[in-house]
Amino acid sequence: MGHYDHIKGEALRGNQQLPELGLVLFTFGNVSVADHDQRVFAIKPSGVPYEELSLEKMVVVDFRGNIVEGDLRPSSDTKTHAVLYEKWNSVVSIVHTHSTYATAWAQAQKGIPIMGTTHADHLTTDIPCAPVMTDEMIKGDYEYQTGIQILQHFENHNLDYKEVEMILIANHAPFTWGSSVHKAVYNSAVLEEVAKMAWISKQINPSAPRLKKALIEKHFERKHGKDAYYGQQKP
Amino acid sequence: MGHYDHIKGEALRGNQQLPELGLVLFTFGNVSVADHDQRVFAIKPSGVPYEELSLEKMVVVDFRGNIVEGDLRPSSDTKTHAVLYEKWNSVVSIVHTHSTYATAWAQAQKGIPIMGTTHADHLTTDIPCAPVMTDEMIKGDYEYQTGIQILQHFENHNLDYKEVEMILIANHAPFTWGSSVHKAVYNSAVLEEVAKMAWISKQINPSAPRLKKALIEKHFERKHGKDAYYGQQKP
Amino acid sequence: MGHYDHIKGEALRGNQQLPELGLVLFTFGNVSVADHDQRVFAIKPSGVPYEELSLEKMVVVDFRGNIVEGDLRPSSDTKTHAVLYEKWNSVVSIVHTHSTYATAWAQAQKGIPIMGTTHADHLTTDIPCAPVMTDEMIKGDYEYQTGIQILQHFENHNLDYKEVEMILIANHAPFTWGSSVHKAVYNSAVLEEVAKMAWISKQINPSAPRLKKALIEKHFERKHGKDAYYGQQKP
Amino acid sequence: MGHYDHIKGEALRGNQQLPELGLVLFTFGNVSVADHDQRVFAIKPSGVPYEELSLEKMVVVDFRGNIVEGDLRPSSDTKTHAVLYEKWNSVVSIVHTHSTYATAWAQAQKGIPIMGTTHADHLTTDIPCAPVMTDEMIKGDYEYQTGIQILQHFENHNLDYKEVEMILIANHAPFTWGSSVHKAVYNSAVLEEVAKMAWISKQINPSAPRLKKALIEKHFERKHGKDAYYGQQKP
Repeated sequence: MGHYDHIKGEALRGNQQLPELGLVLFTFGNVSVADHDQRVFAIKPSGVPYEELSLEKMVVVDFRGNIVEGDLRPSSDTKTHAVLYEKWNSVVSIVHTHSTYATAWAQAQKGIPIMGTTHADHLTTDIPCAPVMTDEMIKGDYEYQTGIQILQHFENHNLDYKEVEMILIANHAPFTWGSSVHKAVYNSAVLEEVAKMAWISKQINPSAPRLKKALIEKHFERKHGKDAYYGQQKP
Repeated sequence: MGHYDHIKGEALRGNQQLPELGLVLFTFGNVSVADHDQRVFAIKPSGVPYEELSLEKMVVVDFRGNIVEGDLRPSSDTKTHAVLYEKWNSVVSIVHTHSTYATAWAQAQKGIPIMGTTHADHLTTDIPCAPVMTDEMIKGDYEYQTGIQILQHFENHNLDYKEVEMILIANHAPFTWGSSVHKAVYNSAVLEEVAKMAWISKQINPSAPRLKKALIEKHFERKHGKDAYYGQQKP
Repeated sequence: MGHYDHIKGEALRGNQQLPELGLVLFTFGNVSVADHDQRVFAIKPSGVPYEELSLEKMVVVDFRGNIVEGDLRPSSDTKTHAVLYEKWNSVVSIVHTHSTYATAWAQAQKGIPIMGTTHADHLTTDIPCAPVMTDEMIKGDYEYQTGIQILQHFENHNLDYKEVEMILIANHAPFTWGSSVHKAVYNSAVLEEVAKMAWISKQINPSAPRLKKALIEKHFERKHGKDAYYGQQKP
Repeated sequence: MGHYDHIKGEALRGNQQLPELGLVLFTFGNVSVADHDQRVFAIKPSGVPYEELSLEKMVVVDFRGNIVEGDLRPSSDTKTHAVLYEKWNSVVSIVHTHSTYATAWAQAQKGIPIMGTTHADHLTTDIPCAPVMTDEMIKGDYEYQTGIQILQHFENHNLDYKEVEMILIANHAPFTWGSSVHKAVYNSAVLEEVAKMAWISKQINPSAPRLKKALIEKHFERKHGKDAYYGQQKP
């Protein structure tokens, strides 16, 4: 068994889940899994259909985006993943998709307002939407700068990447992450569902208010707080 | 066979139907089945995926929400179920989901207007939406208070839980119930379809009126009245 | 083989197609097939799930709606079918569903405007929407009167049932028909798709005009005219 | 093996993909594959369900639309395909569907604005919508004139068919093409997804702007430019 087979195996399985969950058309998404000790991550090869993926085809790169193992070219979004792993130590997996409803909000250049407890079960803020990048950032090292844009948006808005595990990039699409590949993929599916619900809610009642503070806190706490009572883990 | 196997079996099957009917993502929903003689009900364990459920994993609790049988923690919504069973004697099963369209109406803080006979075949009123709970209720025993909020809304609006077997909780999601697990789950699916239709109807024609009284009564009566002629049961 | 097995078999297969085509939830629809020589038709039993249907369970009734063969109660919509068969000699099959998008237009009390060639390939007019019935009609022999309402709407608007094989009933849902069960079911699926497209087109551009006359005629003629060149039948 | 088996086999497979990708209802679409050396193309027979297609049933016609091989009548849209092959030398395959969201934009008589990188990954302009044809064009050789309408729209707007591989025909539906059947079918699926996203984005934020120039160029270049780094092909 190779040095990187654990992360390659997890990244393989994570990528295969994207079409199973209806989050991707063709090859429009990628999942990576990092090993922070070795400072590397395994990621999907670029443009390869999910059903043709295998352990051997996964690509391992370091946190600068240089290939460490693998014969294929890694996802074109690799440097965005690298920037986030470099900076965010507890992120073990990152997912990028162009899922329909989340991408529609990104194209609308709007963060997704927190409208209900489905949203609040997962995060206590609106789902952020990073602004369109400047021409300089785009024309430079674009995918690297996409990562920088995410980091800056979190810093500018005092967001904590351990609490807010997703972001939209304006005119582009979402990124999600988590402390496991399971969690990062799960977050992409939750984001897509929340994006769909929020759109319909706003269509039904354009003046529907955001969720009130007490309800945001209660739902998040019961799932993630120190006295959490959702699921089977002891808090 | 154990004391509670009949309700555990029915609750198991009811929970498994939720993903089959497309009403839940991941673990976003739960079904319970009550035995009013023993004053207990079986409910889904919290956070366990539907495909991993088994008879052994179902949890039995009393009408105060105390665990009577089972090794796992019950659904975090257990106390809401308990409150309703305690008060509503003929309710045998309760279902909670975050189904997309019903939840979108809840997030919009709007009841679903009765727009057609699909709706009237099942109930003669708008589908009620209980208002957002007060901060006191939320910060207190939240799930218990959610049940109280439902009971109060029915009382305040003179609704009969035997005729109106569903409600939206503003900013949260729907609850449905019935005199059997089959009926309670069926009601969740009907609600979701009616919610989708009403949204689209209002998009097509924002000034479309509610269904007229004669039509409401006719459709409900032909399915549920003393001379009902829908289905195979003798009225 | 029984007297009515040919129509029972066709009606059985037609009913089974409704869930396959995504046109029904639970038992929300019914298909009938007529034998005009014997002046009878076979129809779905009321409230029986499609997957439990069999030849034996189909019900045969005459054009007044009286049961001729079968142990079960026929669809509650039977008299509507009967009225149409009685009057429209060349209609061999009738389908009633509560399909989502067509029903949404019916609830909006709007006919579906002819917006494109997908529509024009099948009919040259808007899809008609019969007005809400009067209280007298509703309180009387409701399903019979629903048939009368359809006939009157066709008469009042000079519509030919051989050319316009579908109608919406305001606040209720669609009926479609045809010279074969295949065609009647096909029309229900086409109607649903056309209903969805027209809704989205109007959302994109509320002032989008109807299809122009030359295009309506061309598309209908190439499929149904005397020099039709769509499909494999010699015109 | 026959003269035309290579294009018949590819056209067969391409047509079969349309229902697999959810792009067609019944027989509402057709795929053709050309051999420019022999100046012929294979196309779907008219009105035959996709699941009944076989190599033998495919029809081969020349670039005037005359049948060269095959017992069945070719797609009623054959002359549109012929006109495009005649003029556009590097187009190897053409696809016509009535896919829901793309057709809804066509019915709205609107091109699809470039709102995000999902779109820009495939083309750098709005997806064009050719205007409604004149009555003369419609009443004349309609399908031939549909091809002419496409060619003229590309000429009038200085569009390059090698870069913009798709178009909507107002009040009708989309056509897509490519240098392989895989690419042409792929383009139809991408168009449908982009059409859906753009609709929802505009619903969320009617004033959302088009994608900025730097982002359009970057995304297109990284996939199609001389230094492209998407996929596994060496640029």
